[in-house]
Amino acid sequence: MKVEALRLVIRSARKFINVGSLSRLWNLVKNFHPAEIANLMDHLISRERLILINTLYERDKDKAAEVLSELDPEDAASILENLPIDQIADIMQITPSDDVAPILELLPEEMKDAVLAAMAQKTTEEVMELLDHEQETAGRIMSPNFYALNENTNVSDTITAMQLESDVESAFYLYVIDDQDHLQGVVSLRQLLFSRPNTPLKNIMTRDVISVHTETDQEEVARQVADYNLVAIPVVDSEGKLSGVITVDDIIDVIDKEATEDIYKMLSLDTTDRIQDSPFTSIKKRLPFLLFSLLTASVAPLVVKYFEGTIQDFVTLAVFMPLVAALGGIAGNQTIAIMVREIAIGQTEWISARKALFKELLVGIGNGLVLGVIVGVASYAIYGNLYLGLVLGVAVIINLFVAALIGTLIPFFLRLLKLDPALGSVNLLTMFTDSIGLLTFLGLATFFLAYLK
Amino acid sequence: MKVEALRLVIRSARKFINVGSLSRLWNLVKNFHPAEIANLMDHLISRERLILINTLYERDKDKAAEVLSELDPEDAASILENLPIDQIADIMQITPSDDVAPILELLPEEMKDAVLAAMAQKTTEEVMELLDHEQETAGRIMSPNFYALNENTNVSDTITAMQLESDVESAFYLYVIDDQDHLQGVVSLRQLLFSRPNTPLKNIMTRDVISVHTETDQEEVARQVADYNLVAIPVVDSEGKLSGVITVDDIIDVIDKEATEDIYKMLSLDTTDRIQDSPFTSIKKRLPFLLFSLLTASVAPLVVKYFEGTIQDFVTLAVFMPLVAALGGIAGNQTIAIMVREIAIGQTEWISARKALFKELLVGIGNGLVLGVIVGVASYAIYGNLYLGLVLGVAVIINLFVAALIGTLIPFFLRLLKLDPALGSVNLLTMFTDSIGLLTFLGLATFFLAYLK
Repeated sequence: MKVEALRLVIRSARKFINVGSLSRLWNLVKNFHPAEIANLMDHLISRERLILINTLYERDKDKAAEVLSELDPEDAASILENLPIDQIADIMQITPSDDVAPILELLPEEMKDAVLAAMAQKTTEEVMELLDHEQETAGRIMSPNFYALNENTNVSDTITAMQLESDVESAFYLYVIDDQDHLQGVVSLRQLLFSRPNTPLKNIMTRDVISVHTETDQEEVARQVADYNLVAIPVVDSEGKLSGVITVDDIIDVIDKEATEDIYKMLSLDTTDRIQDSPFTSIKKRLPFLLFSLLTASVAPLVVKYFEGTIQDFVTLAVFMPLVAALGGIAGNQTIAIMVREIAIGQTEWISARKALFKELLVGIGNGLVLGVIVGVASYAIYGNLYLGLVLGVAVIINLFVAALIGTLIPFFLRLLKLDPALGSVNLLTMFTDSIGLLTFLGLATFFLAYLK
Repeated sequence: MKVEALRLVIRSARKFINVGSLSRLWNLVKNFHPAEIANLMDHLISRERLILINTLYERDKDKAAEVLSELDPEDAASILENLPIDQIADIMQITPSDDVAPILELLPEEMKDAVLAAMAQKTTEEVMELLDHEQETAGRIMSPNFYALNENTNVSDTITAMQLESDVESAFYLYVIDDQDHLQGVVSLRQLLFSRPNTPLKNIMTRDVISVHTETDQEEVARQVADYNLVAIPVVDSEGKLSGVITVDDIIDVIDKEATEDIYKMLSLDTTDRIQDSPFTSIKKRLPFLLFSLLTASVAPLVVKYFEGTIQDFVTLAVFMPLVAALGGIAGNQTIAIMVREIAIGQTEWISARKALFKELLVGIGNGLVLGVIVGVASYAIYGNLYLGLVLGVAVIINLFVAALIGTLIPFFLRLLKLDPALGSVNLLTMFTDSIGLLTFLGLATFFLAYLK
């Protein structure tokens, strides 16, 4: 939907909701794709969302379920929280279980249990099984509904069987299993189309199937799907039995989410922070990071405090403090960005860590020399103080070297601590570049103080 | 491939290359998936890459072409540059044209023209047509090879026709066109499988096809595919004629690339900067941003220079300068991160800009109050100077408000200038938070100087 159209739809929807014209609301949205209704939801406030979902639920339960599937689990959960248990269960029952699991786990514990108890047994079991797996693993995001047939089934029986199954998520591959449910191969619909009716699947299947384990990290799953250009990937358990399938639309969600998470973690933001959150919620989410920043930002003042005497003697040093600190921070951010992102997209394993460090140090020295000379010469030209120029120039060169060193090490160091390589990295870097930069600058200045004045 | 296995493969490949055992090199890689060979390439230096691609080319041209398709266009182009024209043309001819176009345009102009002239006419035309479209549009990334049949074709003729076509990219949908090539509908392979042989396509096709225009931005295309959970999206020209198809694997590349670009642009990094680039290349790519940073970082010193007298009178102010600046920067980064990312994933249109600004300002004031009080009280406790505590606390509160204001406005302002909303945003923000933060802090201190000392 174009922005203008969306604007109009939002305005109309809000009007209909607020005057209670629910049948006009229904007429407005009934032909929209669920993704479009979800997009509309993003622009409504909680009360309006609740009315819209109730309107959908009363006219077309499937549509309500589809819209909830399209929403972020956080948004879906916050809407559902306000509905009676039996209505939640009723909607969740017709929602694919891989979309139900992430929503349910965001509901208050008691409510979750009540909903699970109220749902049909088959769905409950499927959802419980997904929830049994660790968060952010293949087992958690897979769909337990998939086409899988025994390797001895022939093509014509396969086609008949597929016609009977209608509630399976958009299937592009048919997985082939043996008598013990072990994944044996895969058949594309295209191969089915072009094979003789009495051929058993095992004769036409591709045996070399790329699969992941239930406990594989979702980021790794996304990498496999992206590298091998798949539209779905089967998930097997520790015994090699087929447990589920992850389709590419879920992979896109993972990639989007992980990319956002990289940015958010680098810049000290909670990964669940959303633009639609209330100011109070966002304050609560951001404060812990800011309090941590308060600690990291308190190191540089300690350094400066040590040199108070020097600054008192030659106050021009205070003028250049922000410059030395800022240049180190910016150069270090460049290094951090490239390291975090290349670790994320799997380009850099520990394998090349030393190579990367060596390269970044050379870049730091090279750029440091250029910036240091410019800053040194410019300050000399302005202040006519040769030693000031020298101290400043050398401090900038050293700080860019430090920025490269620390910028490369932080992501690897965080990973060594089993933390996300991006987590608060920009923040940590600033602590080092601010304090080491100022230490170098003010330290050199103290040493040459007699010449500076 | 696991890290340990990859490490071993890299070591063996390098050994075989360096001692010239090319048949052992071939035996090592011949059963690898092209994506795995591409991954191996990432860990080799130029000379080794060239030998590997030549080895592949001599034994199995298709494999060489597939590996080149899997590489980043930049890497593929830098390898091809060293090959003779007829060999480049020979490989490019068997590479899908949507992968050829981005590689060719990175070659030197003369070389590109020579390769285009040496390729088979059909391929040349396809590639030239793609290159006719703007970069980063649907028309540039689409594949001109797709299944499309006339709406009057019946199911059995369709199946026969599809069996004859083998060089089409993995097709999951069959597009249906009228006599003038206008896109009319879509048929899934599943529908074909379950329909009677003599039914014409127009009776079974879905008419409501989601499509994009050749000039649609690739980010918008990615958004559509993600929102509507598609595995392929058709591209039509201005007359509604079907021009190409974009498959989900290309969309994943777009999403990955755009996410990396967001991070790189925010942190002032060239989007083509790679960990494998030589130090000299990276220096050249990063210097322009650093020189720009030198300008933005020179604003704060001007502010401080204005207050030299105040600092001379009360040098403790210099101690707290880095703290005021850092807190503003970090809080502002949080706002920038959320704005850039939510604009990127399409959550925020101009529609909600005012709402977002209002919210961020409230968050800025809230967090500012908490941090300001902590900083004020702590400095009072340490220095026993009530006015220092007050000045510092108020400066932090004001700077967090400014950070929220500037952090929200920068992305929208950059977009207003038709620039990327992320471009250098963290850098620009720091300029404002450093200088306005220090202006507030030192300004207040000057005003209360009599009480401070």
